[in-house]
Amino acid sequence: MNDTNQASLDLHKKHRGKLEVKSKVKIETKEDLSLAYTPGVGQVSIEIGKDKSLSREYTLKRNTVAIVSDGSAILGLGNLGPEAAIPVMEGKAVLFKEFANVDAFPICLDTQDTEEIIKAVKYIAPVFGGINLEDISAPRCFEIENRLKTELNIPVMHDDQHGTATVVLAALINALKLSELSPNNAKVVINGSGAAGTAVTKLLLKYGFIDIVMVDSKGIISKTREDLNPEKLELAEITNPRRVSGDLQIALNSSNIFIGVSKGNILNADLIKTMAEKPIIFALGNPVPEIMPDIAKEAGAFIVATGRSDFPNQINNVLAFPGIFRGALDNQVPQITDEMLIEAAKNIANCVTELTTENLIPSVFNKQVSIEVAKAIK
Amino acid sequence: MNDTNQASLDLHKKHRGKLEVKSKVKIETKEDLSLAYTPGVGQVSIEIGKDKSLSREYTLKRNTVAIVSDGSAILGLGNLGPEAAIPVMEGKAVLFKEFANVDAFPICLDTQDTEEIIKAVKYIAPVFGGINLEDISAPRCFEIENRLKTELNIPVMHDDQHGTATVVLAALINALKLSELSPNNAKVVINGSGAAGTAVTKLLLKYGFIDIVMVDSKGIISKTREDLNPEKLELAEITNPRRVSGDLQIALNSSNIFIGVSKGNILNADLIKTMAEKPIIFALGNPVPEIMPDIAKEAGAFIVATGRSDFPNQINNVLAFPGIFRGALDNQVPQITDEMLIEAAKNIANCVTELTTENLIPSVFNKQVSIEVAKAIK
Repeated sequence: MNDTNQASLDLHKKHRGKLEVKSKVKIETKEDLSLAYTPGVGQVSIEIGKDKSLSREYTLKRNTVAIVSDGSAILGLGNLGPEAAIPVMEGKAVLFKEFANVDAFPICLDTQDTEEIIKAVKYIAPVFGGINLEDISAPRCFEIENRLKTELNIPVMHDDQHGTATVVLAALINALKLSELSPNNAKVVINGSGAAGTAVTKLLLKYGFIDIVMVDSKGIISKTREDLNPEKLELAEITNPRRVSGDLQIALNSSNIFIGVSKGNILNADLIKTMAEKPIIFALGNPVPEIMPDIAKEAGAFIVATGRSDFPNQINNVLAFPGIFRGALDNQVPQITDEMLIEAAKNIANCVTELTTENLIPSVFNKQVSIEVAKAIK
Repeated sequence: MNDTNQASLDLHKKHRGKLEVKSKVKIETKEDLSLAYTPGVGQVSIEIGKDKSLSREYTLKRNTVAIVSDGSAILGLGNLGPEAAIPVMEGKAVLFKEFANVDAFPICLDTQDTEEIIKAVKYIAPVFGGINLEDISAPRCFEIENRLKTELNIPVMHDDQHGTATVVLAALINALKLSELSPNNAKVVINGSGAAGTAVTKLLLKYGFIDIVMVDSKGIISKTREDLNPEKLELAEITNPRRVSGDLQIALNSSNIFIGVSKGNILNADLIKTMAEKPIIFALGNPVPEIMPDIAKEAGAFIVATGRSDFPNQINNVLAFPGIFRGALDNQVPQITDEMLIEAAKNIANCVTELTTENLIPSVFNKQVSIEVAKAIK
């Protein structure tokens, strides 16, 4: 076990997790008790009973988000179950608080049935001002998110999809500024068609990118393939305008931008050399990037970004989700739209003051980012 | 609106509820991030994935309780729905933290269907070390609690039942010390056969009381009645050994102890005068007691207790539930048993150092109580 892993285990054991529930009011006198609890609290219940929307004024709802996972796709580790999801969701809650003062609480569900997850989230919704879905495997995550967006009146976002897409778009906006490419002439290859790959593709199309070729483990997603599920069939309809088919190598030929949201090590120097001049490489595979930055650079990459903190240009969802929910809660948006996420991506991109190929996106510790992102969610 | 109610509304509005989620770890450096979140947290997930029970070592589970309500029986106010339950459950969470350092989080469910509530609680259980059911109407609360106790491997307790029963028993234990009564000769009348009345009756029987007559809105619960639901039929089987039938007046005749867990104002001086010498009156109706203490005293009551903080002898669940869950979490009990609750009641009773008729039970602010209660839950 490496040092970081051991240190993380030690940290978690020492504190027994990372979250606690804290009271904002003191209970030292009978009067304190009669206001925070009975009998005074009865009047608060009566008022909310008459008008449910007052729960946003009188309770934690206004500032509280549920981080919901079924543990089916934990980080890059796979289906480890709901208990194993708890430390990740706690970590996410820590980031929500640290970067946007959002109170988030982990809800790790002991079911992986789509309909049961939808029901459970609807049942627990009264306490929450928003729902952050997390680490739920594709394609179930699409149905779950879409249904909850329709059936709940609080914002619902699957962060693995839309948080990732927002930060990738932010980085791409800045990468385009440094290159001669524009959304309507850049050839983009997206490797991976799970939650992240699907959402990145759709947001890039919405932003104005036209030529996107998606590749999954069986090759280029195209209408000629007969093994596509309904979600991938839809992707085949909206991407691949040049109707190419074949493997990653064919997709990459003369392309400008590679975005890897898959599992490690599938890109190499030879493949990069088949791309167009000054290619842009986002190797976001977690924990192992599709290619290591030094190898990509040596093969001619103009810009390289990864998901890792130990290389420049870290594309990390923490740049997006805290601010997205901060804005959604403050501005009481009924749902988070693609248009809002595009504005959020622009605002993230604008937080970089000295833009270079090694300084493409803001640091995750730049506290201005969540403030700027929140402004976009209205 | 009275001053307390207005002040409570103001307090809730000012703070927007009473709870916040707080991080126990700092996120100031890349290393902090890599330990509390990715990549380090992945190892924690892997370990828990191999052995679920490690979630008690590495996550918030060990110290966290869900306070679950469907809003169907909020305080004495009735069925106001899940949103209206939030401020009460937040208040309860504040007390959990204040009196026993338990992290409790409100789960207010948008369903009042027994089976759906059971499923929802089972689905959310992985994050929690215990389940406190609250303000769920009878008779559904009995089925929900019993099923969850059987089907979950974490302690489940409906506080309106067992928290109340524990504190009532504690007060009775001390009342007996001041009188010439003992459990096997005291004639007890319990007015109210909802969640609290049922649980008080069963715990008193377990403790050794023999002569208990229960009264509901239709009169004495006896086997001769034909309008009893299954729960009340069971009560008719285990109570009323003298086979009396009729109304409250008949039940009270020559009785020693009256316990009211019903709705206000059904007792009066004339009725008290029909009881045996030196009667003990627990008028716990909320918010209006079954009789005001001064009237009861004047009519000859030896001891009077209420649920209110503005009279002596306040019988309040806060003396029990924080310590019960503190003990249950620390000692990893699979379920909370009647035997544990009886020990807890004895320990509460023993916290009173100068026992008098006006000083029957400890103050809710006596911090020793939850420590002593916790010792009993093992």
